[in-house]
Amino acid sequence: MGSGKTIKVGIVGASGYSGEELIRLLLKHTKCKIEFITSRKYNGISIGEVFPRFAESQLKFVSPDITEIKKSGVEVVFLALPHGLASEYAIPLKNFGLKVIDISADFRLNSADKYKEYYKQEHPAPELLTEAVYGLPEIYREKIELAKLVACPGCYPTSIILPLVPLLREDLILCDGIVASSGSGVSGAGRKVDLPYIYPECNESFRAYAASGHRHLPEIEQELAISAGKPELKINFIPHLVPMNRGINSTLILSLNCADSKAISEIYKKYYANEPFVRVLPEGKLADTKHVTMSNICEIGYVVDKRTNKLIVTSAIDNLTKGAAGQAVQCMNLMSGFNEDLGLF
Amino acid sequence: MGSGKTIKVGIVGASGYSGEELIRLLLKHTKCKIEFITSRKYNGISIGEVFPRFAESQLKFVSPDITEIKKSGVEVVFLALPHGLASEYAIPLKNFGLKVIDISADFRLNSADKYKEYYKQEHPAPELLTEAVYGLPEIYREKIELAKLVACPGCYPTSIILPLVPLLREDLILCDGIVASSGSGVSGAGRKVDLPYIYPECNESFRAYAASGHRHLPEIEQELAISAGKPELKINFIPHLVPMNRGINSTLILSLNCADSKAISEIYKKYYANEPFVRVLPEGKLADTKHVTMSNICEIGYVVDKRTNKLIVTSAIDNLTKGAAGQAVQCMNLMSGFNEDLGLF
Amino acid sequence: MGSGKTIKVGIVGASGYSGEELIRLLLKHTKCKIEFITSRKYNGISIGEVFPRFAESQLKFVSPDITEIKKSGVEVVFLALPHGLASEYAIPLKNFGLKVIDISADFRLNSADKYKEYYKQEHPAPELLTEAVYGLPEIYREKIELAKLVACPGCYPTSIILPLVPLLREDLILCDGIVASSGSGVSGAGRKVDLPYIYPECNESFRAYAASGHRHLPEIEQELAISAGKPELKINFIPHLVPMNRGINSTLILSLNCADSKAISEIYKKYYANEPFVRVLPEGKLADTKHVTMSNICEIGYVVDKRTNKLIVTSAIDNLTKGAAGQAVQCMNLMSGFNEDLGLF
Amino acid sequence: MGSGKTIKVGIVGASGYSGEELIRLLLKHTKCKIEFITSRKYNGISIGEVFPRFAESQLKFVSPDITEIKKSGVEVVFLALPHGLASEYAIPLKNFGLKVIDISADFRLNSADKYKEYYKQEHPAPELLTEAVYGLPEIYREKIELAKLVACPGCYPTSIILPLVPLLREDLILCDGIVASSGSGVSGAGRKVDLPYIYPECNESFRAYAASGHRHLPEIEQELAISAGKPELKINFIPHLVPMNRGINSTLILSLNCADSKAISEIYKKYYANEPFVRVLPEGKLADTKHVTMSNICEIGYVVDKRTNKLIVTSAIDNLTKGAAGQAVQCMNLMSGFNEDLGLF
Repeated sequence: MGSGKTIKVGIVGASGYSGEELIRLLLKHTKCKIEFITSRKYNGISIGEVFPRFAESQLKFVSPDITEIKKSGVEVVFLALPHGLASEYAIPLKNFGLKVIDISADFRLNSADKYKEYYKQEHPAPELLTEAVYGLPEIYREKIELAKLVACPGCYPTSIILPLVPLLREDLILCDGIVASSGSGVSGAGRKVDLPYIYPECNESFRAYAASGHRHLPEIEQELAISAGKPELKINFIPHLVPMNRGINSTLILSLNCADSKAISEIYKKYYANEPFVRVLPEGKLADTKHVTMSNICEIGYVVDKRTNKLIVTSAIDNLTKGAAGQAVQCMNLMSGFNEDLGLF
Repeated sequence: MGSGKTIKVGIVGASGYSGEELIRLLLKHTKCKIEFITSRKYNGISIGEVFPRFAESQLKFVSPDITEIKKSGVEVVFLALPHGLASEYAIPLKNFGLKVIDISADFRLNSADKYKEYYKQEHPAPELLTEAVYGLPEIYREKIELAKLVACPGCYPTSIILPLVPLLREDLILCDGIVASSGSGVSGAGRKVDLPYIYPECNESFRAYAASGHRHLPEIEQELAISAGKPELKINFIPHLVPMNRGINSTLILSLNCADSKAISEIYKKYYANEPFVRVLPEGKLADTKHVTMSNICEIGYVVDKRTNKLIVTSAIDNLTKGAAGQAVQCMNLMSGFNEDLGLF
Repeated sequence: MGSGKTIKVGIVGASGYSGEELIRLLLKHTKCKIEFITSRKYNGISIGEVFPRFAESQLKFVSPDITEIKKSGVEVVFLALPHGLASEYAIPLKNFGLKVIDISADFRLNSADKYKEYYKQEHPAPELLTEAVYGLPEIYREKIELAKLVACPGCYPTSIILPLVPLLREDLILCDGIVASSGSGVSGAGRKVDLPYIYPECNESFRAYAASGHRHLPEIEQELAISAGKPELKINFIPHLVPMNRGINSTLILSLNCADSKAISEIYKKYYANEPFVRVLPEGKLADTKHVTMSNICEIGYVVDKRTNKLIVTSAIDNLTKGAAGQAVQCMNLMSGFNEDLGLF
Repeated sequence: MGSGKTIKVGIVGASGYSGEELIRLLLKHTKCKIEFITSRKYNGISIGEVFPRFAESQLKFVSPDITEIKKSGVEVVFLALPHGLASEYAIPLKNFGLKVIDISADFRLNSADKYKEYYKQEHPAPELLTEAVYGLPEIYREKIELAKLVACPGCYPTSIILPLVPLLREDLILCDGIVASSGSGVSGAGRKVDLPYIYPECNESFRAYAASGHRHLPEIEQELAISAGKPELKINFIPHLVPMNRGINSTLILSLNCADSKAISEIYKKYYANEPFVRVLPEGKLADTKHVTMSNICEIGYVVDKRTNKLIVTSAIDNLTKGAAGQAVQCMNLMSGFNEDLGLF
């Protein structure tokens, strides 16, 4: 189980659902000790007061302070902050020599222009964009192991990139006309107090949103283009809000570029048979969010539609685990020399 | 409000959710009297015992009997039966001179071969397939007014055909590569007592199913081909189960065949501005099932993705109302010379 | 169906869920015309923009203005405002001669002291408290018919008072030790944008709140005391939040004061057999919120526990219909000489 | 962490939700190895086929066979069988010398007469009733450590007995007139394929059931009587079905027998301050099922209603964890000399 050492970690900005999930995972992680958890809003309040499931913990939120963090003795800092704000911590902490795992969108894109286009602000540290590693271990494991700054993927991107990378790398599908129709539980909107997210507005409701330019789109297209070895790749990504707490299911409609569906099965086996957190179902079985609730697994199912020569792939993750905090812990394990699945089963 | 007459109607096989919705609508319809409701299973039992919301009604289920139905004095018979069984009633009752409104799939397809392919049995009365009218009033109003046998569309097809017909007829989109990604509330599976539909298997679950050959596919393709003036048109239709009781939302990904999104708006206005049960939202607003719960409205919203030159259309209906019983009542109103929206607002 | 006249009505403050339900009911009411709907927040905006299910309506929200209301020609004004604010409209409008139906709590209590104790402010018009009629038609029908100012009961009180009044009036239960354990759908909290009511905080959650002093308590105790002919009657009322949109189920645990459960059945028949909106189930069957969704019915079920000599009564209503807007329309029908159930089935 | 040994365990009848939860907990338990899992229905099928979240496991269901079990080398057998059937395994396996942890109701009652009254069949082994230990570690820890046959409490009883035992033992409440109004998620009904449990019958529904004689009643009364030192104690217990997957919240209405609410706080501290799985909230805060989802914690909150001199206690558990499988593992830990909380955080 790697070395016997235990490391100290800190969480900056842990008052949302991703933060809560991160706390849940780290509290039971046998080789980590949470040294501090920050929140401006809840400064001085015990975490159990904000998240009653942690009532037994003695941890209190403290105000985020870069100087204090540097003195704290932590090796790894998780940032569960809104984009824009994350950079303000990532840059000095990374420069100070800490390992930074950022759950926000600040370092996911290679291009500062794309960042500005989708996030409506100048990127605060474009020079770091090439250094930051996209925190998807199944794709960038070796880079993550050596990284000082990891940008954890968005939840939708995780569910879409994982099933597509093998197919694109091996040319089993066409790059043109990829459609991703995804649905997310409401926790995906964060712990946001806003009219569209109150219970009666979401329950008994199923609706698409941001159908032509969701913020997760550029990072999806960036990673798919890399996999396909193309300078650019455009897809249609339509997210939906689903009346449930947790989970994302992405349905991908793809143009087959191979004669035989056996190739799909073989390629998935080649890429994912030994991945602890990717489960590929037998052909014909489709993914279901409830199979992966509170787990770090990405479940992938597929079926070929011979009538239209399309491949339909479905993938399910828990948006807060593999889609955010679980993936962050998986990265931390890699960066710290721990077993990759430590604390995640 | 048409003539002052009141008609007698009967419902055969009303023990499922479509049947319940039909009873709800007909009980408050001011120009109909329900003369009988049949159910083999609940023969002799009051409808309030099976559906407590009708406890105030004195109606009892009777056993279905064609001879009795002929004597009953009804003008219209609704069939809320499984496919296959519906024909056994539709044929003799129609031949006897009654108007038959069939909610099953038995008379939706023009082709007995397609019926056999998807429903795994010989069609019992292929000669009636050309006579039966597809009960989508917005498309076949005049035919429905004169019809003796109406085949009400499936719930998914209603949500997909209505937004697509104007676009296909006017050549605003390409026929190739149409993708329909739909989600339905669990009542869409009927009042079926089966493991996948018990509460803990559906709640906190979002999953695709029948992704390469759902039974609603051939009627969708049939109607789209007719609209496009083509002998054949193939689409990809991927249904999903959504943890809610009622509602369907279909997201359609379409290749634009026009330079300007204003054309979309104009065409929808041309086709639907005067339709009582179609609501087209302003460009950029998307449909939501909760806007149409327990209403007969089909809500349509759309947005153009200029990056990919795709048109994204979303449509929402209540699967039991516009998707089944409400549409059946709308057809009955037309067939009986009533105002089309009588009893539906 | 009463006289053939049609009346004009107005709604003040209709931007919440009770307001939405009121609009829904009044739009299809055949003898009412909504003359105006006010909302400070949505002034100038069409009601369809706020509540898309009314997209077909041309009505727009206007700013509330007492002078304008007086000039509008309406006969009845509904107040769907927060308590405190409601009085500011109720008093001048009532004095001007309009019939006022107040859905807020401002005129429910007979005692200004109780009002201050529970609502933490002086009552603005104590002199009106005796004049206002408690808008529960099954109990105060004759008074409502003549009333100028009707205070519609709270949602929980409706579900608790209706099943208890006959039992208390006829001495079938003891006044001591009454326990009401109720659960409400989240729309009962209003269209309030507050952390405890966002979807992930309510879904998969079942919790009691305000267990020792909910604001609905004094009106419940007031009406039960009147029914029992006592100066005072104290109960325990424990509300719960249930992960659903609509509906209240109240479970009442009562000490039997009669030898025979037949007395219960007879008394309920005596009081409620002819009530259009009260449904008493046969002994042993219990109420269910889903039986009354979007209906104005109060469903009552009961069972006797011989082991403890307790009577368990359950009652279900739709909190927005019989618990608010439907009851208000029922009162309006009575005050206007219409059939009591007009527009409510 | 106790001894370093690892034990082999078996599960008989694990095809329901309690069985699934048991598998989930035991798979990640560091000192147990699941040697076999039986199911008549799924004999020969991998557990991942039945419960896809275990797809990575190689375990297959086998047919239950007492001879095989005896040869298997397991130390502990969990029975997740229907009552009646459980005894058929419990008796021979216990006599053979295995430790038996029964999740069914077969050995919970001290009285074979009560068993017959509530379960409608003769008890198969009345002589074992006094030997079996009621598996509530907070109450019977020492007995469980030595037990050969443990009868795990029902889910509702766990949520009701834990908060009441300290109050009854210390005479802080009266024994008369105890009311327990509880609500359970639908998984509490088991993985039962029956009309009342399909999704559309449960969603948007909140209803009481079995209000005068639920099968969990006698074990609740038995344990409360023991705590109170009385030969008999009768309560009213009213269960409700709540539209959620997991969780029970019990609201207890109790007559205070002490002058000061501080006594409550002190007694709870005395009994539960050191219990790893009982969380007592500060006075005035109430329990919530979502605080304990997928945890083995029983959360207790309370408030005093001075107006009526009642104590309102609420308690929340996960019905499948502390209410079934988690409690069984907690018992196993005690019986095996492991740390009590091993594998449960």
